[in-house]
Order: sequence, then C-alpha cells, then structure tokens
Amino acid sequence: MKNFRSDNEAPVHPEIMDALIKTNQGFSESYGYDELSELLTAQFQQLFGCWCEVLPLTTGTAANGIATALTTPPYGAIYCHPNSHLNVDECGAPEFFSGGAKLLPVAGKNGKIDISMLNQQLQNSGHHGEHESLPAAISITQCTEAGTVYSLAELQAIKKIANRYGLAVHMDGARFANALVTLGVDAGSATWQSGIDLLSFGATKNGAMMAEALVIFNPNYNKQIKRLRKRSGHLISKMRFIHCQLLAYLKNDLWLNMARHANAQAQLFTTSVKDSVSLLYPVEANEVFCRLPINQIEYLEQQGFLFHRWPGEKDVIRLVFSFATDEADTQQLIQAITAI
Amino acid sequence: MKNFRSDNEAPVHPEIMDALIKTNQGFSESYGYDELSELLTAQFQQLFGCWCEVLPLTTGTAANGIATALTTPPYGAIYCHPNSHLNVDECGAPEFFSGGAKLLPVAGKNGKIDISMLNQQLQNSGHHGEHESLPAAISITQCTEAGTVYSLAELQAIKKIANRYGLAVHMDGARFANALVTLGVDAGSATWQSGIDLLSFGATKNGAMMAEALVIFNPNYNKQIKRLRKRSGHLISKMRFIHCQLLAYLKNDLWLNMARHANAQAQLFTTSVKDSVSLLYPVEANEVFCRLPINQIEYLEQQGFLFHRWPGEKDVIRLVFSFATDEADTQQLIQAITAI
Amino acid sequence: MKNFRSDNEAPVHPEIMDALIKTNQGFSESYGYDELSELLTAQFQQLFGCWCEVLPLTTGTAANGIATALTTPPYGAIYCHPNSHLNVDECGAPEFFSGGAKLLPVAGKNGKIDISMLNQQLQNSGHHGEHESLPAAISITQCTEAGTVYSLAELQAIKKIANRYGLAVHMDGARFANALVTLGVDAGSATWQSGIDLLSFGATKNGAMMAEALVIFNPNYNKQIKRLRKRSGHLISKMRFIHCQLLAYLKNDLWLNMARHANAQAQLFTTSVKDSVSLLYPVEANEVFCRLPINQIEYLEQQGFLFHRWPGEKDVIRLVFSFATDEADTQQLIQAITAI
Amino acid sequence: MKNFRSDNEAPVHPEIMDALIKTNQGFSESYGYDELSELLTAQFQQLFGCWCEVLPLTTGTAANGIATALTTPPYGAIYCHPNSHLNVDECGAPEFFSGGAKLLPVAGKNGKIDISMLNQQLQNSGHHGEHESLPAAISITQCTEAGTVYSLAELQAIKKIANRYGLAVHMDGARFANALVTLGVDAGSATWQSGIDLLSFGATKNGAMMAEALVIFNPNYNKQIKRLRKRSGHLISKMRFIHCQLLAYLKNDLWLNMARHANAQAQLFTTSVKDSVSLLYPVEANEVFCRLPINQIEYLEQQGFLFHRWPGEKDVIRLVFSFATDEADTQQLIQAITAI
Repeated sequence: MKNFRSDNEAPVHPEIMDALIKTNQGFSESYGYDELSELLTAQFQQLFGCWCEVLPLTTGTAANGIATALTTPPYGAIYCHPNSHLNVDECGAPEFFSGGAKLLPVAGKNGKIDISMLNQQLQNSGHHGEHESLPAAISITQCTEAGTVYSLAELQAIKKIANRYGLAVHMDGARFANALVTLGVDAGSATWQSGIDLLSFGATKNGAMMAEALVIFNPNYNKQIKRLRKRSGHLISKMRFIHCQLLAYLKNDLWLNMARHANAQAQLFTTSVKDSVSLLYPVEANEVFCRLPINQIEYLEQQGFLFHRWPGEKDVIRLVFSFATDEADTQQLIQAITAI
Repeated sequence: MKNFRSDNEAPVHPEIMDALIKTNQGFSESYGYDELSELLTAQFQQLFGCWCEVLPLTTGTAANGIATALTTPPYGAIYCHPNSHLNVDECGAPEFFSGGAKLLPVAGKNGKIDISMLNQQLQNSGHHGEHESLPAAISITQCTEAGTVYSLAELQAIKKIANRYGLAVHMDGARFANALVTLGVDAGSATWQSGIDLLSFGATKNGAMMAEALVIFNPNYNKQIKRLRKRSGHLISKMRFIHCQLLAYLKNDLWLNMARHANAQAQLFTTSVKDSVSLLYPVEANEVFCRLPINQIEYLEQQGFLFHRWPGEKDVIRLVFSFATDEADTQQLIQAITAI
Repeated sequence: MKNFRSDNEAPVHPEIMDALIKTNQGFSESYGYDELSELLTAQFQQLFGCWCEVLPLTTGTAANGIATALTTPPYGAIYCHPNSHLNVDECGAPEFFSGGAKLLPVAGKNGKIDISMLNQQLQNSGHHGEHESLPAAISITQCTEAGTVYSLAELQAIKKIANRYGLAVHMDGARFANALVTLGVDAGSATWQSGIDLLSFGATKNGAMMAEALVIFNPNYNKQIKRLRKRSGHLISKMRFIHCQLLAYLKNDLWLNMARHANAQAQLFTTSVKDSVSLLYPVEANEVFCRLPINQIEYLEQQGFLFHRWPGEKDVIRLVFSFATDEADTQQLIQAITAI
Repeated sequence: MKNFRSDNEAPVHPEIMDALIKTNQGFSESYGYDELSELLTAQFQQLFGCWCEVLPLTTGTAANGIATALTTPPYGAIYCHPNSHLNVDECGAPEFFSGGAKLLPVAGKNGKIDISMLNQQLQNSGHHGEHESLPAAISITQCTEAGTVYSLAELQAIKKIANRYGLAVHMDGARFANALVTLGVDAGSATWQSGIDLLSFGATKNGAMMAEALVIFNPNYNKQIKRLRKRSGHLISKMRFIHCQLLAYLKNDLWLNMARHANAQAQLFTTSVKDSVSLLYPVEANEVFCRLPINQIEYLEQQGFLFHRWPGEKDVIRLVFSFATDEADTQQLIQAITAI
C-alpha cells in the first residue's frame, strides 16, 4: 500500500471487526443502555485505576467539543497551542459546543505549549475584569500535532499553573496510545495523576472503526454529559456497536500493541534515514515531519509513496505510521530516501 | 426475543454487516474522500431521479440538526408537530445546530400537522415585525411519530403553504422506507416531487448499524454542509464505513424489502387483534399504539413481551415491528392478546 | 394626544429627565463603576428588604435574556405562557442568550399559566431521560400580557411546583409597578417572599427613558452576570446615565405614583364603558383589551384615538394607560365609546 | 478634573443633552418607528454620500457583534489585530453574536494589521478544506487601539486582499470622528470609497450619552438587521432618545469639532513633552501611550492626574483626550511632566 498519509486511512483491526460481528446478535437496548455499557465503564476505571465517567462517541471532534462545553462557559477562554487540532482543524467545533468560548493560542516549540508563556499570559489576564473572557481551561494534545510527547513533568507543570488560576486541564488524546507507549507508564500516571481532568480518548486512528470516548476524571466536570451528547447528535441509537469497539480495543492490550508497532516503525524509519533527511521535530511517537528537497518529494510520489505535503511549507512532508503499516513498506521508503 | 420495543434495538442486517467487512480492505482516503463517496451520491441521484446532495451521517438527530441549520436562521422559526421527534426527543438539537431558532408547534390528528391550522398560524404571523421570529421552515416526520403516513396530497398541500410564505419543507425520514412502502410510489414522488426540499434519510432503524444521510434536493439549502458536519463533530475519519452501509442498504432494494417485512408484521398484528385492542391511530407503517387494560399490559410483560409503555398515559403501549421481527414472535403476541 | 397605543410611546417623566441632567456633571468612572452604582444596589436592597444583586440594563429583552442564561442551560427548558412576551415578542432572545434553550408553552386563562397544567406537564417530563430538555425554569409575566395580575397565592402555588422539580422562578416585570399597586403589598412580598428568584424590573414603560434592571434574589443564579451583560453588548460605557434613571424612578415613590395613575385611568375607563364594550380579560392594571364592532373601531380611529388592533382578531383592540395619560383624553375616549 | 483616563468618562455634550430634552415632548411611536428615524438615515446617507443602512444602537460592542453576525457564519473566521477591542475587550461578544465564529489574530506594528502577514495567512488558508473555518471578514479598528490611524492607502490595500479572498471589511469606528479629523477627508472617502463594507460608528466616546450606529454600505450584508438588534435585546422601546443623540451629534459638525479638540489636545501634549517621555506609538488621534519611570508615574498620580496604567507593562500609561478636556488641565499635565 505504501500509505504513510494518515493513521485515519488505515483499516479496522481484525479483532475489532470481530467484536462488531459478535455484537450483532439479536436485539439489545438502544441509546447506550445495552449490557456492554457498564462493562465499558468498569474497564476504563480499571485501566485508569480510579473513578471515571466514560462517554463513548464516534469522533474526537465530538469528544473535544463536549469537553470544551464542560469546562468552559460561553464567556470563557481555553488556552491551547496555536497549531492544535482544537484550534485549527475542527472548523470551530469547540466554539460551537461551548456556545462561543474563545481559544487563546499559546505558542511553544515542538508543538507544545510553552509553559512560561502560558504563565505570563495568565498573569496578564484579569486586569480588565468583565471585558475579558474568563480563563477556564488549558487543552493540550498528547501526542502533539508535531508528533512529540509531553513528559509527565511537563504535564505536572501545566497542572500547577492550572491550579493557580482555577483552570481545568483537558487532554486531546487522539493518539493517546502512542504517547502512552512512549512514556512507558500506566494510563493513570499519564493522565489524572499528572493533573488531567478530562481526556479525549482516541481509538479510531489506532485501529477502531469509529470509536472514541470522553473520559472525565474530575467529577466537577461531569455535568449532564448525556444531554450534551444527545443534543449534539452524538447518541447513536445502536450504541452497542461503539461500546464493543472500545472493549475490543482495550482487550489483551491490543491498543498498546498497535501503538507500539506504529511507534516502532516511525523509529525504524527515523533511525535509518537520519543522515538523509532533516527532521522538524523530535520523533517521539508515530508521526515524522521532514524537510526534503522538492525534487526528492516528487520522486517519492512518483514511486507511489503516499504522504502529506504540509500546507504552507513546500518542502515539508508528514509521514504517519500506524498499526497497519507493513514493515516492508517502511523499508522500501527508507531505501528510496537513502538511495536518492 | 419477543422484542417489540423499538426498531432501534434490532441488529444490523447481515448484508450490511457483510459490506462493512468487505470495506475493511487496506487503506483508503479518510474524511469522506474515499471511492465510495461518489458512488453513493450517484446511487442517491438515481434513486430519487434528480440532482441531489448527500451528506452521510451517523444519527438522525445530526441530520435533522444540520437540516435546521440550513433552512432556519437563529432568528427564524420552524413549524412542526408538537409531538415530533424534532420538538420533544432531541434535547434541543435543532435549537443547538441553528443557533437558537424557535420550534413552533402546530397540532393535528394522528401525528400530522393540521394543514388549516398551519395556514392560520402563518396568516397570523408577521404582524409584529422584528419582534417575531421569522418563519423559515416546516418540518414533518414521515412516517409520523404516531406511525401514520402523510399522503402525497397532504405533502403537496403543505408545500403550497410553504411556497406562499417562502418556507423550506424538511422531512424527517427516520422511517422513510416504511412510509415509501406504504405509499407505493417511487422515492422521487414521495419527496422532491411532492415539495420536500431536504430529507433526513434514515437507515439505522431499518437495519443499518449507524447510517443516515441528509439529502438536499433544493440547491438553495446546499450551503457549506461539509463545514456544518465537521463543526458538529459528525465527520467520521473513516467515513467509508458509513458510505458502505448506505450502499448496501440501497442495493437490490434491501431497504424496501426490510421495510415491507416490518410493515407487514404490523398489519398482521393489527388485523389479528382488531377486536381485542383499541388503536390510537391508523396503523400505516411499522408502529402500533394501542390502549389496553393495565392488567393486560402487565400480563404481556410477564409473558416476556418487550414494548414501551407510553409516557403520561398509563394504559397505552407502543409496539414496533422491524425487519428483524420474527413472524413467530408476532403470532405469539397476537395469541397472547386475543387469548386474554 | 389621545394616545392609548402603548406605555412605550409615553415620554420620560420630568423628574427622571432632571436626574439625567444633574448626572451630567463632569467626568465619572465608566462601565458601571461610578458612584451611583453602589447607591442603586443599596436602594434596591432597601426596597425589597433583602440581599439582592442588581444589574442595570436598557431593555427588558436583555433582562429576560440574561435571566434565561442564568437559570437555563442550553439543554434546558423554560415553562412560560404561550402568549408571553418571552415566547412571542422577543425574536428568540431567550434562545439566543441561553444558547438554545427551549421554551415550553403552558396555556391558561387570562394570560396566566394554568397551574394544574403546569404540574401535569412536569409530571410527564423526565420519562425519556436525556432525549428531553431538562426542565430548568418557570417564567411568568407580572402584569401578564393580558393585563391581569397573579395573586400572591398564585405565585406561591407556582413556587411550590418549582421547588418540587428544582426549577427557578423568573418574573418578567416589565409592568411590575402596575402589578404592585394592584396587589397593594410591598415589593418584597410580591417577589422573593412569594418565591421569585429573579425579577426583570421594568422602568421604561413607566416613565424612564431606557432603564431596566435584572434583580437576583437567589444567589444560586448570581453567576458572572457582568460578563453576561458585557458579552451581549449591554454594558453602556456611561452607565451612570442608566443608574440615575433608576434612582430617580424609585425616589419618593415616583414609580408607584406613576403606576397608580395609569391603573386608575384604566379603571376609570373600564367602569365607565362597562355597558358598552365587551372585555376580554379582567382589568387589573393599566391595559384593557376589548371587543368592539369593527365600524366602532374605525370610528374611534377617525376621531384620532390611537390604539392597537390586536393581530389575528379583527374586532379586538388594546388600550394602554400610562403615567402620562391625560384624564381629559380618557374622558374623551369614554364619551366617544358610550356615545356610539 | 484632570481626567485623562478615558473619553468614556467624559460627560455628555450640552447640545446632545439639549436634544434629549427637546425630544421629550409627548408621545411618539416606539421601537424605532418614530419620526427621527428616517431623518437619521437621510443624514447618514448625506454624510457618507451614498446609500447606506443605519442601525442605531447603544454600545459599540453591540455594533461590532451585529456586524460580525452579518459578515461571518458560525463556521467562519474574522481576521483582526491581536490587540483589537474585538479580540480582547468584548468578553467574546463577536463569538456570541455570530454563533461561535473564530477570531484569527494578525499582528502588526502600531496597532495595525500587517498587510503582508494578512496576505500570507490567507494564502495558507483553505488547504485543509472543511476542517478549517471559512475566512469571512477582516475587521480593523479606526483609530486603532494604539491611537494610530490607518491611511486610505492602507485601507485600500486591505480591501484588495479582501476582494481576492471574498471577505467583508468591517471597521470598528469607536473613535471614527478622531480618525476622520486626522485623515482630513470626508466620511465617504474614509469608508466605503476605501473599501469598508460595514462601519461601527461610535458617538459615545465623543460626547454622546449612549449612541452608536452600525452603518452598512454593502447591501450584501444588510440582512434582517432589525431582527438581529431585537433578538440581542438592543431595540430600545423609546428609540427616539437614541436617534436624537445621533442627529445632534452630526448637526453643525459638532462631532468633528469635538474630535478636533480632543486630537488637538493630544498633539499639544505630545509636542510639549516630546523630550521628556518615550512614546510607544505615533500619536495620530486622541490617545497617547507613553513609557515613564515608575516613580514619575506615581508622582503624577499623587498630583491628582487620572490615567490608566497599562496592564502587563508597569511603566506604560495611557492618556486619553476628549472633547471635554480642559486645556488648562492639559497644560498642568505638561508642566508636571516636563518639570520632573
């Protein structure tokens, strides 16, 4: 296939497909009140080692949107990286779900919010009272849109600031599995123990068909979530088919094994081509951004390799490795690049 | 199973499940730009015999919500039946998607808008200028929430009023297949040829896993629909798995055959019990509302029959028949009722 | 002038105009932080005999809109009379301010919510869980749009229901002064002591230039009201000119004296014409709705009397009496009607 | 008074107060349908030398909010300066009025959007289709928040970009009079002839009590503006008292004379202190931002001079001169600074 364009283009993992088939037995309660629902919550609570509320959904945009509605009033503000998916890639979904909250960009290297700039911006807020939006939340992406991973220390530093100003911390975990594999810690350590109040838990990019979940660790943000889901059209009538995907995803560490493979392919690639290409960011998960001469980019395209040319920068490409990446394809890509 | 509670509780039809399995081959373009997308539009255009725009979605609430956003400005009003799903069963989704439009109830027998009352309400509108919301759309449900079906003549009468006042006509077709079977006409006759501008085309209640589509016949309402879908979190990254459901649903008249079976079971039931129960509405599709003595309702429940007791009316139950209803179950139910 | 069209068409009372002139001395803190602000709160607290928060505004629509935002989440519902200003005369402002909440009409005679119907509707709510909007508030208009006045007993009966279902009670008091005069009780008895949580306190219809206030008695609904005002564009930079109107309005019972005059004119009229016209509702404040033969309506118009013909009913007119109604005009109108 | 804190703290000009008094004669049609309304439109059309629609309002926030709703759909984006009032000083009003549109900051020196950066950002937009908000408008402030004035050439350069990308151009003219005096051209040249589609025309900062107007030059953006005003609570019932302020404001060039005085005071000050203080921006209208040693700032405060210390920068103060600034006060301030 030689497809390095996006983990969204990968298929559904066979074990998840099997779960869908097995779930399709006879009648079952609709609108989320099926038997798998409670099982799912139990699984998540075991995974994270704590109480948590789980709201299954079909897209990360919905999870991020509902998270925003829970943390940020219409007159509130959310701090996020200027390049975050939340800010640039959801056509204003956070604004929609929150009823018009404001996203305030905080820049930083390698796709991460710069912590001292965040602190500075918050220190400067509040001087103009009701004329300003109320700081309400910080949202970070893990892995970031640059393919990097916040360390636990970085998460905790963000939490410290959040606590000082009474803000919620939301993690957009569209590629949470990839980050967790990189961090090498358990799911609880990477989230609530490091100060995360709400997590958009992604599965679709890592082998599910369409299954995500909003996981709420802080009960302060657990308000009428079912109505928020229904009202935005995200209550599937046959919810059991979302539930079963998530259960299969977690079963026997399938999700971590898939992420491990994806990350390993990215590392294999990076290590192998490091003398031939210029990397834009440290490669810490399953995405690689590299700068290549344009004629080389064109050559790779002619060879049938699929990848994204990055908007606004003509000599930058993004390669994404997934659970479905065939190592033979990775090797071909390495050879093509090193041979140039 | 003896489940007559809801067609939402039925499983996925095997042919649709097969389509999902077959679609799960290798990589494919994400976010709706896969190969099935154009095919789907072509199929819908052939089905309806006209140009139309098709926006695949996972829920009817989303389809209705986006339809509302397309027809009705925030300062606008939508006329609908007081018992319509739009008005009472979507936790304010139309208000959310439209940015606060107003739903104006127009009562009527058998779940249908009373056409002369609709006309009267519109005649009385506009006297107070900018103080009133702007009439913008009429939304009808086909089949209605009472299990009845608007005739083509009724649709055309509504259209006539809509034209007089410059309103869009939206059809919530969560059970469109069942209505079409009852009407015995082609899909185009039942929609755009009878004045429908936008159709929420439902498939989930009739055998799909989670697949609906907003179908736009009137290009005036075809504005930035992809952004509306994205922004509300309804752009699945692996859209091919929604597309394939809809294609399988239409293939070889599967959808009509399923609806035909469901309607036939409802008729079988109704005809068989007509001397034993009191029907609330004419049975014209796959739903039956009947009034029974409470002790009989309890008896049926004890026998393991599943159905809804209707909120607010203690002696009314709703029975829903679906593609998956086993005729043996229907017969058992008939016997149980007639034996009482 | 012979203007009985609306108290909105009356001028500003000279004492309020004087206050505006006197306030226009030199510089003063802007955006509501002027010296009159605290004085105003103190005056309102004294008037109502309790703690209360006062948010000065320029329109009743803004007061009602912000009240809705405070009591009702976007997924919530507000119960109100179908003919209430909130429901039919604000172009969807409550929906706008609340982010899409739903207004649920509860009919009733004489412009008042029927209390047993309200109870019934609430009993029937909640059976469908997250599919329904969450009941959040009851809004009543005092005086009602029919010119009638809820008794304290009626208010308390509404409160009892509100408490049972955990709802806020909001009073749209565009003509609160007229109601208070009719009730003959103090302001506290007519509001928080009878269960009102928030009051839209109107002054414009009763002699102010543009001055209203949202008065919050229940601190549970006192959240970020200044941001809600700012964000909706209702923070006037030179707020002192709103504050001074309200202070002058309350001073020496000016507001009650004005309302007393208006109500007395309505009574004078009603008593004098009672054998000649048919009243639609009991006349309990400053508005009179009467049914007259169309040729008589036309005759009155030819005589130069100004009033509203009621939309949708060709033989109904509304007469409004205000602080500025000249008794000579009232007498002329009486003579014209009784002479016919 | 020695108040240099804000033109919002100045009183109402006596001629405007006189107009209010004169307007308070007897009854008049309410809700904007009084006799002054048409006169006002005629005056604005004469002033700008073109067709235009005029929507009187009480705040600039409302004018900016409605302008945003007219130009930018909920899924759209508005380009503005990061320090613009729209972006930082309205508690999210543009997001509220537009239903969640996105403000995209474009930095630039002296409070002005950098035109090449604007062009660059627009060139980079659109690569990600429906995932991005739709560029819809550019909003500039004239005078800017830095007290500078866009030249006609700069406005035209912005318009050129706007045309290329199909964007509306909105001018937030809270201090439009001050800018016009600086530019020395007529009102039409400074607006529609330089590409402005909508103008928030401010009067309150320059001597009115509470009177602003949204002026629409481009009929494409003239859609249901009265409903937008009503629905946001900005339709004052006694609108004649807003109309008369605007008429008095324009009469005999009162507005320009007031702005001329304010600007002249700022120039007098700047010229006189230029060797003693460091200016942050060119002084082109009635605002002066200067950097002073903190002890000098404190000294001025002790002398009773009122001004703003700028949030986030401890040695920066803002001085604002208004129509009501007494030259004696300006001279005292000059002496105090030059004497240090």
